Amino acid sequence: MNKTQRGNFFEDFAVGRRFRHATPRTVTDGDVALYTALTGSRFAVNASVTAAACLGHLRAPLDDLLVFHLVFGKTVPDVSLNAVANLGYADCVFGAPVYPGDTLHAESEVIGVRQNSRGDTGTVYVRSTGFNQRGEVVLDYVRWVMVRKADPESPAPDPVVPEVSKSVSADRLLAPDDRTVAAYDTVLSGSDVLWEDYSAGEKIDHVDGVTVESAEHMAATRLYHNTARAHFDQYAAQAGRFGHRIVYGGHIMSLARAVSVNGLANAFRIAAINGGRHVLPVLAGDTVYAWTEVLERIALPGRSRVGALRLRAVATRDLPCESFPYRDEGDAEGGKYHPAVVLDLDYTVLIPRRGDGAAD
Amino acid sequence: MNKTQRGNFFEDFAVGRRFRHATPRTVTDGDVALYTALTGSRFAVNASVTAAACLGHLRAPLDDLLVFHLVFGKTVPDVSLNAVANLGYADCVFGAPVYPGDTLHAESEVIGVRQNSRGDTGTVYVRSTGFNQRGEVVLDYVRWVMVRKADPESPAPDPVVPEVSKSVSADRLLAPDDRTVAAYDTVLSGSDVLWEDYSAGEKIDHVDGVTVESAEHMAATRLYHNTARAHFDQYAAQAGRFGHRIVYGGHIMSLARAVSVNGLANAFRIAAINGGRHVLPVLAGDTVYAWTEVLERIALPGRSRVGALRLRAVATRDLPCESFPYRDEGDAEGGKYHPAVVLDLDYTVLIPRRGDGAAD
Amino acid sequence: MNKTQRGNFFEDFAVGRRFRHATPRTVTDGDVALYTALTGSRFAVNASVTAAACLGHLRAPLDDLLVFHLVFGKTVPDVSLNAVANLGYADCVFGAPVYPGDTLHAESEVIGVRQNSRGDTGTVYVRSTGFNQRGEVVLDYVRWVMVRKADPESPAPDPVVPEVSKSVSADRLLAPDDRTVAAYDTVLSGSDVLWEDYSAGEKIDHVDGVTVESAEHMAATRLYHNTARAHFDQYAAQAGRFGHRIVYGGHIMSLARAVSVNGLANAFRIAAINGGRHVLPVLAGDTVYAWTEVLERIALPGRSRVGALRLRAVATRDLPCESFPYRDEGDAEGGKYHPAVVLDLDYTVLIPRRGDGAAD
Repeated sequence: MNKTQRGNFFEDFAVGRRFRHATPRTVTDGDVALYTALTGSRFAVNASVTAAACLGHLRAPLDDLLVFHLVFGKTVPDVSLNAVANLGYADCVFGAPVYPGDTLHAESEVIGVRQNSRGDTGTVYVRSTGFNQRGEVVLDYVRWVMVRKADPESPAPDPVVPEVSKSVSADRLLAPDDRTVAAYDTVLSGSDVLWEDYSAGEKIDHVDGVTVESAEHMAATRLYHNTARAHFDQYAAQAGRFGHRIVYGGHIMSLARAVSVNGLANAFRIAAINGGRHVLPVLAGDTVYAWTEVLERIALPGRSRVGALRLRAVATRDLPCESFPYRDEGDAEGGKYHPAVVLDLDYTVLIPRRGDGAAD
Repeated sequence: MNKTQRGNFFEDFAVGRRFRHATPRTVTDGDVALYTALTGSRFAVNASVTAAACLGHLRAPLDDLLVFHLVFGKTVPDVSLNAVANLGYADCVFGAPVYPGDTLHAESEVIGVRQNSRGDTGTVYVRSTGFNQRGEVVLDYVRWVMVRKADPESPAPDPVVPEVSKSVSADRLLAPDDRTVAAYDTVLSGSDVLWEDYSAGEKIDHVDGVTVESAEHMAATRLYHNTARAHFDQYAAQAGRFGHRIVYGGHIMSLARAVSVNGLANAFRIAAINGGRHVLPVLAGDTVYAWTEVLERIALPGRSRVGALRLRAVATRDLPCESFPYRDEGDAEGGKYHPAVVLDLDYTVLIPRRGDGAAD
Repeated sequence: MNKTQRGNFFEDFAVGRRFRHATPRTVTDGDVALYTALTGSRFAVNASVTAAACLGHLRAPLDDLLVFHLVFGKTVPDVSLNAVANLGYADCVFGAPVYPGDTLHAESEVIGVRQNSRGDTGTVYVRSTGFNQRGEVVLDYVRWVMVRKADPESPAPDPVVPEVSKSVSADRLLAPDDRTVAAYDTVLSGSDVLWEDYSAGEKIDHVDGVTVESAEHMAATRLYHNTARAHFDQYAAQAGRFGHRIVYGGHIMSLARAVSVNGLANAFRIAAINGGRHVLPVLAGDTVYAWTEVLERIALPGRSRVGALRLRAVATRDLPCESFPYRDEGDAEGGKYHPAVVLDLDYTVLIPRRGDGAAD
């Protein structure tokens, strides 16, 4: 009997297979403090009960990306231990807020498989869902990863490629009602820039650069119970493609979100991730910068005091973002990325509106 | 509309201007654990409810310098984002103890401005106050910083230089009453050295050296929501004056205080900071040592079981302190600092007295 | 009066001398989160109230080695500040589970002394006991250390070498009763490998390698209030034997235990440490791997649903463990260690049994 789990290979993923991922995780104030210390996250609603109360919370909820990482981490041993590349996320919706004391667990279902032309790997599509201890969904998303085959000679399965929405539609975003948002206090966030003040096409440089250290990204990744080896083992990494451990891509998402507080201080919640791509790996010693483009200002059904912004966050390494580096050829979707770009994330945030109709 | 806040410049500080700093911060057991792990603080009253109960607390209060850093951190985005140098602190009084679960916020008032002779910078004096969720003052202090002007050609304001006391007088120190201190148990602190055992002029080498790592000082600084860029961005720093990120000066204060437990184990509270100067920056890789000179033994009005000690803490880099390095020329106030000295801190602690009159 | 404590020397340890170690420590969710982030520990019972409840706990108990480190840390200032080498542990029994909110303190008694032949050092044997706030024993163990003499000319004491059991006998292991274990859910741990599935002589490679960073091992060691200087002071270390700070040996025990979750996921509790040896020091930058040999499958008196496994954990540096490196000459007890081996730990875990008699 083989006691050590070595993860699933491409052949192990049949469409419809379901995983109840191991090790439920009770989140605590300790996790929150570490997340703050390791990423610099400082959105008011997550930092204090005072600001949280203004949004109807009895306690400060966890930063949404901390929830994302915790759920994602649960899926790694079953889904991506033998992954060659994390190809993308989509259709990611955030559900019930998570508070210290809640216990999270996760499940996944295989929704697509497609062997690659070389025959030694394949793309696996899973829908993963995180739940709290009451069975409420806290997060639901699709991920696709390139996974090694155990045996390159094994036959290819019938390809199944799921349709994934390009973006999460406004009616699927969970937003507090107008009455709840009415108590929002911009003094607590330090910025009076609200929904009406943003417009599609606007670009915001978040200025701050953050140098990543090995001890930081490993501590963060362990906190999420993410066991992917590429992040922890320098002895193995030195013989590998990059010569170094690579930073968990989610850590870069967190750094980009954290510095975005300067420019988006009132974006109190991530409601959805429409798509995401880790363009290049980040290594310890790299300095990460980020900028945001406002893709769309979205009115929410039945809400006049809270709206949504669809944003593109772009993170770079070792390049400040005052010139908004992105892609070649007028930043067209198909253009080649600027060589400093490491993250291209399309996500949707909630933000209070003045509700006076001034911008509409 | 410029979404990104780039901080205030010298011209923005008019005497009398008040700031309600953003992002209240609920402190938790997680913050306390990180402070312990990152600084080595281990005074008994902060480490256990058992020792805290002996001083009348229902829970272990936060280390006083953790409170200092949290309040200080709040002020950075408004006060010192464009600072060239943090020149000093004074008249700093610690108020209500802070416990996990408390929510801190901070305000500041500009109490002085003076343009420098070269005309491109000026000194700004602020009084900053930290409050808990009940509006009780937890900390009140004066700080002065050298801040860049936005426009070197802008006219100089009328200079206003506030008078700042050289030290916080005994009647302003908040001390528990004799009955509360009566239950103090030196077994818990591991030392029976009390107020009567110290005398002015006495020097104590705290022996332990602590090497500072980038991941540590950045995590600590982020925990305090301190956003000063010099601590985080190696890409920018490599072109700068030191070639490296500099360590938040408050982290050195914490390291000096932490090692002082060996020699001052019963100094259960910092009651005041009379003055402080970051003589030189510390960089990752430096090893910090510290020693203490007892400046004054202070009897507190109406107290026979608790007294105060005014102390000078001196921290060095890469030089053990058995020879008590400080200043040239007999350590006179005006002498030049020994090149290894990084911190010169004048502060006042509370410490139990035997109360038997033996030393008086 | 010398204010700074410089620790005890060999001459200070008389058989029968007792220490009440300083600084009781209230453990919190913050300590747990840091332990997770710094070691990667992810056993289900410690990670969630859900899994803890299946073993009869109202809250998730602390990882057993976190308890070990906290108690051990308390003893350092009195026992091993002047230690040349930490020679071994034995007869270590884990008692009452520890939960966040508990306050730990520790006591030790000198049970043996023997001067070494060169006359400048001696071996000190202590029995140390950790207690919670109700006076319940949480840990009890024997440790022996080589300690410097203050004066090499001082006379040798009569040698006293205590008898220490080779292993903790089954009747001294504290195990939950069958009814408590009946609710155990292998879905939560992610593995259905139970007591009956292991057999003596079986070897398990835990696969994952973890590179140790200075910031990590220092933060962990500070969290435990462990003040041994060799871990913190690079300035002093560079002139020393290794040229670098050495990693607290207990941190390596934690790393070995953490990676062992892959292969021993249901080993929900360390019940005893029978013996342990830090074969070589680990330095920052080393990558630690580990493997386990099952030494004995132990039935527990009066239990059919929970059993014990006596295990040997071997950790290496910079050598993956698929070939199970250990000692020369058929791994005989007296053989020379493979040069990559850093830890040789003999310990006993509790693990659920099917209770159907299938394996007996």
